[in-house]
Amino acid sequence: MPVYTAPTKDTQFILHDMLKVSEAATPGYEDLERDFTAAILEEAGKISSEVLHPLNTVGDQEGCKLENGLVSTPTGFKAAFEQVKAGGWTGLDMPEQYGGQNMPYVLGTAVGEMFSSANQAFVMYQGLTHGAAAAILAHGTDQQKDTYLPKMVSCEWTGTMNLTEPHCGTDLGLMRTKAEPQDDGSYKVSGQKIFISAGDHDMADNIIHLVLAKIPGGPEGIKGVSLFIVPKFVVKEDGTAGARNGVSVGNIEKKMGIHGNSTCVMNYDEATGYLLGDTHKGMRAMFTMMNEARIGVGMQGVSQAEAAYQNAVEYAKDRLQGRDVTGAKNPDGPADPLIVHPDIRRSLMDQKSFVEGGRAFLLWGANMIDQAHRDGNKDADGLVSLLTPVIKGFLTDEGYDMTVKAQQVFGGHGYIEEHGMSQYTRDARIAQIYEGANGVQALDLVGRKLAVDGGKHLMGFFELVKTFCKDNAELSEDYAKSYIAPLKSASKDLQAASMYFMQNGMKNPNNALSGSYDFMHMFGHVCLGLMWAQMGKAAIEALDAGASDAAFYETKIATGRYYMARRLPATKLHLARIETGADTVMALDAASF
Amino acid sequence: MPVYTAPTKDTQFILHDMLKVSEAATPGYEDLERDFTAAILEEAGKISSEVLHPLNTVGDQEGCKLENGLVSTPTGFKAAFEQVKAGGWTGLDMPEQYGGQNMPYVLGTAVGEMFSSANQAFVMYQGLTHGAAAAILAHGTDQQKDTYLPKMVSCEWTGTMNLTEPHCGTDLGLMRTKAEPQDDGSYKVSGQKIFISAGDHDMADNIIHLVLAKIPGGPEGIKGVSLFIVPKFVVKEDGTAGARNGVSVGNIEKKMGIHGNSTCVMNYDEATGYLLGDTHKGMRAMFTMMNEARIGVGMQGVSQAEAAYQNAVEYAKDRLQGRDVTGAKNPDGPADPLIVHPDIRRSLMDQKSFVEGGRAFLLWGANMIDQAHRDGNKDADGLVSLLTPVIKGFLTDEGYDMTVKAQQVFGGHGYIEEHGMSQYTRDARIAQIYEGANGVQALDLVGRKLAVDGGKHLMGFFELVKTFCKDNAELSEDYAKSYIAPLKSASKDLQAASMYFMQNGMKNPNNALSGSYDFMHMFGHVCLGLMWAQMGKAAIEALDAGASDAAFYETKIATGRYYMARRLPATKLHLARIETGADTVMALDAASF
Repeated sequence: MPVYTAPTKDTQFILHDMLKVSEAATPGYEDLERDFTAAILEEAGKISSEVLHPLNTVGDQEGCKLENGLVSTPTGFKAAFEQVKAGGWTGLDMPEQYGGQNMPYVLGTAVGEMFSSANQAFVMYQGLTHGAAAAILAHGTDQQKDTYLPKMVSCEWTGTMNLTEPHCGTDLGLMRTKAEPQDDGSYKVSGQKIFISAGDHDMADNIIHLVLAKIPGGPEGIKGVSLFIVPKFVVKEDGTAGARNGVSVGNIEKKMGIHGNSTCVMNYDEATGYLLGDTHKGMRAMFTMMNEARIGVGMQGVSQAEAAYQNAVEYAKDRLQGRDVTGAKNPDGPADPLIVHPDIRRSLMDQKSFVEGGRAFLLWGANMIDQAHRDGNKDADGLVSLLTPVIKGFLTDEGYDMTVKAQQVFGGHGYIEEHGMSQYTRDARIAQIYEGANGVQALDLVGRKLAVDGGKHLMGFFELVKTFCKDNAELSEDYAKSYIAPLKSASKDLQAASMYFMQNGMKNPNNALSGSYDFMHMFGHVCLGLMWAQMGKAAIEALDAGASDAAFYETKIATGRYYMARRLPATKLHLARIETGADTVMALDAASF
Repeated sequence: MPVYTAPTKDTQFILHDMLKVSEAATPGYEDLERDFTAAILEEAGKISSEVLHPLNTVGDQEGCKLENGLVSTPTGFKAAFEQVKAGGWTGLDMPEQYGGQNMPYVLGTAVGEMFSSANQAFVMYQGLTHGAAAAILAHGTDQQKDTYLPKMVSCEWTGTMNLTEPHCGTDLGLMRTKAEPQDDGSYKVSGQKIFISAGDHDMADNIIHLVLAKIPGGPEGIKGVSLFIVPKFVVKEDGTAGARNGVSVGNIEKKMGIHGNSTCVMNYDEATGYLLGDTHKGMRAMFTMMNEARIGVGMQGVSQAEAAYQNAVEYAKDRLQGRDVTGAKNPDGPADPLIVHPDIRRSLMDQKSFVEGGRAFLLWGANMIDQAHRDGNKDADGLVSLLTPVIKGFLTDEGYDMTVKAQQVFGGHGYIEEHGMSQYTRDARIAQIYEGANGVQALDLVGRKLAVDGGKHLMGFFELVKTFCKDNAELSEDYAKSYIAPLKSASKDLQAASMYFMQNGMKNPNNALSGSYDFMHMFGHVCLGLMWAQMGKAAIEALDAGASDAAFYETKIATGRYYMARRLPATKLHLARIETGADTVMALDAASF
């Protein structure tokens, strides 16, 4: 049985020592006092480890079942969801007007990571609902908001996103689902959607599907796509769920992981739908969900790596195997624990430095979202938009690799299902794929985001790093050497790569696109380098201020040093690859593969 | 349904254009004429794609079942195994004296890759038998050889390796299984072994377990371990299987992959066993199996990557999604195939350049094993022994990553089980773990193999690379630039890392061990760089000689250029990490994790 304890202390460190949230001017942040966030996080940690985590293995082993057209979730899911709803967790960062608690997104993200570590498949039911509600909040009419939001904020009703069709995933312009306008202003939606997470289940009274479809006669391709609200049960005048709508589950997919979440084939057969937002502006409305969802998926990468890491540490301390070559550490026992071995350390340090750096990256990003949404900060908005594909792509790739490393610590015991380590890798794998496969994130980053506003936000990022380095170069000699120097060097590599794209992408866009994946990863490393520099600084300051828990801060500084020394230099390899351009990548005819 | 076609043409290229096997002086190689190996490979390819491959999904979905103490294999396995036996495939490289065909190991490896690509879980039944037979061949008495080998070579009887116990895997000195000597010279073996691949099944008349156990009163730890032959059915005087022995299946493990292979908990309860080799020299005898098994596992890495790659290519050519940014390639269709996109190309080129380079590495290694075993070549023996952990660790790590990349090409369709891409990753994952987890391979390489014979074999490797570079620098200007220069540079990095270990490992062995994993990977890259340099040269020579299939050779050269430009520079990152030593790796107390 795997273990999980919420990393409350580390989250508090990031919120208060690094981001200093309660001192920030962002509206709503004045509530985020240390004691207040501690209380929330403690409570979230408790429900995560006591309620959600024990169901993680159950969900994996039982999976969801489709019988007589209805999906049932694994044993215990429904009761746990009731507990989550009753605790008000589903509306943490939603407006009070609709029953939410209006807390900042940064706090919602911190809580979300814990829930997701405990049970990714479970928390997706809530996460999809949150995304759908956010889209209705942003694009719905007042009537739509009043009809759906109170019930979605409470998760009495849940939500879904319907984009993919059998023949089109990334290229949504190819979609065939149709929405025929009706005299009463509603639409009849017909078509098939696949890979619909939480598409049907037994934990809510209604399911509000957000469905992309084309209104006949509209523009070709992606410009003719609109977004529709299609409830499982059509809502009656009194606001309660009424007659069954023309939407049904065709199948539930057999998947590599996240078995506890029902991934459905959804068939729409003249289902009653309501336009959400403007005609033919469906992609814009959908992107409200997508951007939030992408950050949420990046979070899944960190969350699975964290959970897997905790188990790897426990196993490495517990399992006796071999001797420390520098002298026995457990001389009275038959062997030393695995954790004495340098190669096990390397693996654990890779994991530790990633999850802590990744957590900081997520909360730093969430902080910018709050600045943008609550304070209208356009620079924060631009920067977090630039970084969204990095958060999604880099954190899920690395997160997956870390679950594999954690599994490896267990040797053969990691490969059998008994210890739960296989599940972490199988669950984490999906995050690299959904909400835009990571190659598409890289394309979005290099092909679109870099050039937004004339490259202003990329320049803003470099300026931010430069200023940070300049302002903190004198913090200590060791800090300048261990932290500032590697960060500067990595940031220079990233600038060189950007420059290469500018100079060579014009001639041939493939010169840029051939390096897009490397660029996404090197950007991620520089971001984590910046996070570690900020955390290292915060830890030094805490120690200078005489913090009581010196060991915690010293560990933080040592972990950051590891990242800077061993992980950050990856930027050089990425740059070397990028600078080879498209020639070797595109050399072959398709027939030669 | 996944596809698989044996890469016969590529294997022929490596055997004949690169290794020039039929011109070699190694005894037995005189038979390896181009037409002869072509006929064998064609036939092996046919049985792979027509018989073994269709059962791969079946094996994954059905798994093995334990009922009334007996294991049954998935539907179709038994009939397929009969076909493999009838074709003489199980004794391809075994001595004629015992019913084998005495063909070189290099050919057995080429065939083995195909079988393994088609159905890894299936071919393991045969592979374990081969390893057990090799140990009996090397260490058995004439009577033991006569009793077991004819039936094991034909796979009428199969074999297993029993090392791991619940509390010990790598550290076999901790084992508790006991072997009590009996008056008749036999032993009573008692204890529990876990993770026993092919531990029981319904495809053979007897199963010959090779079991490590301790004879009471012997030396402590690993020095007191002996190896025993423990048949499932005790063999009667007439050589047929007799009474059931005291060995039973406690359980079959639920695993992440290789469901078609029965991974058993084996309980020995005063089972009759026979000493194989000398008393207390069990580890030496077991290593006869282990070294062969490790190369076989390295092969699994390549084999799964090859199979996954073939499917990724097919999907990338078939699936229409998006447009080539440099101009539509399929203007009459709704979109272009995935393969036009640079980031898909990057992924496919990573895969292609790995599987072809990895195949060459395996066959080059197998060639050295033949030189060592058939011709007593001590240098070849020393070099392949040095490289065994690299073959195992590097090829399985990279092989796994490539299956993940292949799966990624499918997007969401890769995550559902329907297309079989999830199985390739789940099956490939085990190869990083069994036969010594890859961290243990790195430890073996750096902690033991580097120093063998005063570092002679490492020096021999560098000399080999140097000589090759010198001899071929003038082949063409492009070759010197695209192939020789990067190989030289990477080999220099590897030398620098070795030098770092020498200079700093004495002071503190952790300085070397903290870099062992990076060293294993950089060594692997240099080996693949050398393979690509050899293949590039062979392709240039074939073109110069006016080879008819110019496209094949030109593709080979372009693929090698990709590896040299994009993959080989990874050595620099590994070196940078290695040169940071143990300080950041070992900085924390165990309690700080």
